[in-house]
Amino acid sequence: MKAEVLTIGDELLRGEIVDSNKSFLSDRLLTVDADVRWHSSVLDDPADMTDAFLRAAGRADVVLVSGGLGPTRDDLTIEVLAHTFGRKLVTDQDTLEKLRAFFARFGREMAPNNAKQANFPEGSEILPNPEGTAPGCMLRTDGASFFCMPGVPRELYRMMDEQVLPRLEALRGDGQVARATLLRTFGMGESNLDEALTDLDLGEGVTLGFRTAFPDNYVRPLARGATAEEAQARLARACDAIQMRLGALVYGEGATETMETVLGRLLQERGKTIAVAESCTGGLLGERITSVPGASEWFRGGIIAYSNEVKIQQLGVPEALLEEHGAVSEPVAAAMAQGVRERLGADFGISTTGISGPGGGSDEKPVGLVYVGVADADHVQARDMLFPFERPRNRAVTTQVALDWVRRMLLGEEPIATRYARRRS
Amino acid sequence: MKAEVLTIGDELLRGEIVDSNKSFLSDRLLTVDADVRWHSSVLDDPADMTDAFLRAAGRADVVLVSGGLGPTRDDLTIEVLAHTFGRKLVTDQDTLEKLRAFFARFGREMAPNNAKQANFPEGSEILPNPEGTAPGCMLRTDGASFFCMPGVPRELYRMMDEQVLPRLEALRGDGQVARATLLRTFGMGESNLDEALTDLDLGEGVTLGFRTAFPDNYVRPLARGATAEEAQARLARACDAIQMRLGALVYGEGATETMETVLGRLLQERGKTIAVAESCTGGLLGERITSVPGASEWFRGGIIAYSNEVKIQQLGVPEALLEEHGAVSEPVAAAMAQGVRERLGADFGISTTGISGPGGGSDEKPVGLVYVGVADADHVQARDMLFPFERPRNRAVTTQVALDWVRRMLLGEEPIATRYARRRS
Repeated sequence: MKAEVLTIGDELLRGEIVDSNKSFLSDRLLTVDADVRWHSSVLDDPADMTDAFLRAAGRADVVLVSGGLGPTRDDLTIEVLAHTFGRKLVTDQDTLEKLRAFFARFGREMAPNNAKQANFPEGSEILPNPEGTAPGCMLRTDGASFFCMPGVPRELYRMMDEQVLPRLEALRGDGQVARATLLRTFGMGESNLDEALTDLDLGEGVTLGFRTAFPDNYVRPLARGATAEEAQARLARACDAIQMRLGALVYGEGATETMETVLGRLLQERGKTIAVAESCTGGLLGERITSVPGASEWFRGGIIAYSNEVKIQQLGVPEALLEEHGAVSEPVAAAMAQGVRERLGADFGISTTGISGPGGGSDEKPVGLVYVGVADADHVQARDMLFPFERPRNRAVTTQVALDWVRRMLLGEEPIATRYARRRS
Repeated sequence: MKAEVLTIGDELLRGEIVDSNKSFLSDRLLTVDADVRWHSSVLDDPADMTDAFLRAAGRADVVLVSGGLGPTRDDLTIEVLAHTFGRKLVTDQDTLEKLRAFFARFGREMAPNNAKQANFPEGSEILPNPEGTAPGCMLRTDGASFFCMPGVPRELYRMMDEQVLPRLEALRGDGQVARATLLRTFGMGESNLDEALTDLDLGEGVTLGFRTAFPDNYVRPLARGATAEEAQARLARACDAIQMRLGALVYGEGATETMETVLGRLLQERGKTIAVAESCTGGLLGERITSVPGASEWFRGGIIAYSNEVKIQQLGVPEALLEEHGAVSEPVAAAMAQGVRERLGADFGISTTGISGPGGGSDEKPVGLVYVGVADADHVQARDMLFPFERPRNRAVTTQVALDWVRRMLLGEEPIATRYARRRS
């Protein structure tokens, strides 16, 4: 099943937006074993669109089209598709009613332009759009099956998953259904992950993929079965096997289980709170923790201690410690974690201090050197790492180490043996 | 001059990466008046590549190719391009020497694979790559001129600007050179900006574009002239005219002058320091300020006061104030700004408190309600805003308002009359 992804819109060709719909659709097409061979984009221009439709029909079996379903003059996808393949446009009364009801709910009259969103090529199948006003459609032509979807990502994602993928599974006609997921891991490189899973029995019909999403690595099991239930059951078994093998390296699953979300849920479940003392990360730890709605339940707050005075006065780090070891040191990281825990009255205190770069490094304390500290009621610990990245990545991976450490403590696990542990001289 | 952008690589078609090179190249092509009509991507597959090259030569005047210049087996762009248009591959001795020298510098032997990076189609012009090992090339064919560039963004950006654009200006052959820039504004909507500049005399050969980059809006003047100097002089005059008209609405220019960079420079120039007290932004203000290298010169630190206790104990906000007005209120925002300024010993204190959503809103204090406070040695002020966005954007625009306010104070300007000022009942 050869596939083409065709996105339509002047804003793409003018470079005003980065077209992430193509990568989303291509990724999803992998789950139905489609061979994605072509990506194309054209202007909102009928001649160019016709040309692109005919070319796609001539070379692909499946064509996913995104964009041009809106109510404006520029939105021509349906009209041009119908014309290209000699179909009449017919109005779908059901869609028209829904459009009218949508505008009535907001007390507005439906503009004539909006009515065109109820038109579809004769013989096409309508794809509902619960996230917006413009439904999509599927049209089978002699060459290929076209799936027209909106360009708005939220609408596109849902239509692809709920309407298009099941139809593609049916089209493929081998009676096989596929289900995939992403297991999010932190702390092991891609090739080591691959090796760690080499001899693992994943069960029938399951294959593994890998993907890097700094600072994480994702494992992507894909399961096939005769029915959706069978594929789902196989996927669940494979996920269990992978989790058994990798243990706490797997911290979450899917698009939404970020490290901060998972940590927040764990803290909430156990009725624990956390506070942060940030030097080199400058607020990023707090920002990540509070990006999760409801974070006030488990997050007390933090001290951004960018200067030594703030470390001393707001965190109670002893001046002598700073003088003896310097701000970027293990004892200072430990004192920061303990200080913020006590002063803000949290169950956990976490701290960061380091040299993010590009300047500020020395032979003894080079750019990329970072200490992370964690304190709870019983212990205070700090560890050093040496990251080889530039400033934004050094800061990002530092916060991931800190959040992951607390997650592991809550699970009764040791902190990860990071690849970036500093080599002692 | 019709243009096509063709990117090559399996990782694109598998959806593993979002292809931002296309939007970069398309944006740049606008500056030479190219009519960008097609975006295409194909696999690292010789048949598909040949097909794409021939199709592009048949419809475009200029084809920008990105990817496939590396040393691995998959990197086939040059080889296939030469074969497609019946050219021999010839080795460029100068490039070969540079490659050898590159490896020698790292004490490594050059692998035979790397030598192929010195091969180019006969008759092509070599495009130097100061950022990497693989040079690009320009090949004129009967149909179109092909420009082959690396896929690595840093290498691509520089080669496009330094090697390709000047050649495209020459190719266009009307003796016109174009220069463009982005003027970054914050605080006015795109249509109002457009209106504010409608009657402005931009001088000869200058046109205006607009672009939204939340929460900013960019104005994009493009100037043409007979020489680079003339275009540059016209651009500078137009920028001056726009700045005169818009005043402090324009906060920076180009890709690198972010709000936090500009504010940091202003603080540094005046020898002033800043501290932050963050509730609803949870650390994002600090994170943004410290994303600028060297921020320790002007940033003292901050208090992330996510709970009332932290507001009271770490910032000295009177308990009575919290009880009477609530944490999300003008007096509390003011007290937070003043508290952090005093306690951390900074020249400026800025604060945020609000309801970012999705939960936590009420009729009186709805989701999106935010107070920003600013304190200096003489004054404490706070203002309320009501943002209509979802959580991440509410937080992002809140920090932009806060940073911009201090920037304006340093310039002796009033804070912006934001579109989102709350309507009082």
